[in-house]
Amino acid sequence: MRALVTGARGFVGPYLLDALRQARAEAFECDMAALPSALESVKPTVIFHLAAQTFVPDALRAPLETYETNTMGTAKLAEAVRASGLEPAPRILFTSSAEVYGARDLSEYPLRERLDLRPANPYGASKAAAEAILLGEARSFGTDVVIARAFNHIGPGQKEHFVVASLAGQLARIAAGAPPQLLVGNLESARDFLDVRDVVAAYIALARHGERSEIYNVCSGGAVTIGDVLGELIRIAGVAVEVREDPQRLRSAETRLSVGSSEKLRARTGWSPQIPLSRSLRDVYDAARDAATVSVKL
Amino acid sequence: MRALVTGARGFVGPYLLDALRQARAEAFECDMAALPSALESVKPTVIFHLAAQTFVPDALRAPLETYETNTMGTAKLAEAVRASGLEPAPRILFTSSAEVYGARDLSEYPLRERLDLRPANPYGASKAAAEAILLGEARSFGTDVVIARAFNHIGPGQKEHFVVASLAGQLARIAAGAPPQLLVGNLESARDFLDVRDVVAAYIALARHGERSEIYNVCSGGAVTIGDVLGELIRIAGVAVEVREDPQRLRSAETRLSVGSSEKLRARTGWSPQIPLSRSLRDVYDAARDAATVSVKL
Repeated sequence: MRALVTGARGFVGPYLLDALRQARAEAFECDMAALPSALESVKPTVIFHLAAQTFVPDALRAPLETYETNTMGTAKLAEAVRASGLEPAPRILFTSSAEVYGARDLSEYPLRERLDLRPANPYGASKAAAEAILLGEARSFGTDVVIARAFNHIGPGQKEHFVVASLAGQLARIAAGAPPQLLVGNLESARDFLDVRDVVAAYIALARHGERSEIYNVCSGGAVTIGDVLGELIRIAGVAVEVREDPQRLRSAETRLSVGSSEKLRARTGWSPQIPLSRSLRDVYDAARDAATVSVKL
Repeated sequence: MRALVTGARGFVGPYLLDALRQARAEAFECDMAALPSALESVKPTVIFHLAAQTFVPDALRAPLETYETNTMGTAKLAEAVRASGLEPAPRILFTSSAEVYGARDLSEYPLRERLDLRPANPYGASKAAAEAILLGEARSFGTDVVIARAFNHIGPGQKEHFVVASLAGQLARIAAGAPPQLLVGNLESARDFLDVRDVVAAYIALARHGERSEIYNVCSGGAVTIGDVLGELIRIAGVAVEVREDPQRLRSAETRLSVGSSEKLRARTGWSPQIPLSRSLRDVYDAARDAATVSVKL
């Protein structure tokens, strides 16, 4: 496998590059602007398209930029691949999102890939639109496309505007001496968390074994509430805290439950998650503690 | 109703403006570039968004331009409406296309609105992506959106790269003295033709009575083969012709059958088609004959 990775400087990108290199694949990162020349020089067999605007509140603030980056950016990638004339044409592994499903009836969980899409924010809509365009390109021109619908993923290095990273960061700073007030959003929201290392393993498995023009949820299959995650992180941190609800962290259009079925991914590729949530949270906390210690020393 | 019409200079636009004015609605046309100022000055209650790149072969030649115009153009419209802050917010009547369905199993005809989307060309994909973005805007921001999925429509004035206009134009020129060779594509393809005057009546009915965030097929509910249309046009023209298959007119990704159910539209709005196919074809031919006569005189 010769892999080209867009959005390699985001949260997931470095983990994917590491995993590819550990699997002895050649892996190259690529800016969207440099795509045509990168296609020509790298001649990839797979393109992992991670480049995106990924933060829902930013998408709510700036929908057009989100559509431009996530939808048109993906269309431009597909057309650049086609224009490159590479033979064999590289596979595009597109990282979509569980946000395409939107909020559903309880009877529809765990979410499966055949559901109709009802994105409830511009981020989810930008990904649903990109899926439509990519699958259209596949039907129109035979483009080799596999779509991965990622649910929540966590791991060391994630920015603190994502919930688990925020809780771990606050706890680490409290452990380092900050005041013990911990700001939280909705603790009853339940999410399907997957360690980012399991996420990139799924992407690589799909690049290798996914069926063309098929869509696969990338998720654990189980839901955990934010409150349970917080309890575990407090236990790991070993600090006493005062939990305060922060209205700014309560998203208006938030999905209260998100849990998918990963049956299709597992059946097709043999993938299964290797890292239990407790280890993910321990690693996230350790990284947050190191960062907090560094910032205290500075 | 105060109506703003984008794409008013296309085939459908002038019919819509006529019908709106006959219904004593105030109707204004608007370039996409002038949208913000038009929203402010007109303060529309409804926006009929017709502006699009509508020709499938052009979409196959230039997918990115098609996504830019049809998908991003629609996103920009929705955001311009939101930015206008108009109260009450105008309804957006979006003209999507039966091309979002793609080719289906015979058992799925007549096509209904709840089917999953499988566009088989970039035009259909651009409309599917625009639908996803618009419905996402509705869920995110409460935008008032109604989606009309138009099937094939015909009427005087349509460009000759559409099949019925092409056949009528050729026949009219033969009647005016041109050589009697008639070039055709696939005569067995069956289409759900609706007169453009019935189409615009459906759009107005949906602007008035369509349910928010709902999708309605705009079609007759019956399929006619291109061969049958040709037979009727030859009868109307009263000329003898020699029919020749033209490989350039056989689209590679062509949908062989297209027929929709208009049950949802009829049930919701009371609309029903008023113009039988024979009259549409007569009017199309008469207009083609006038054009041919003019061009002969010139």
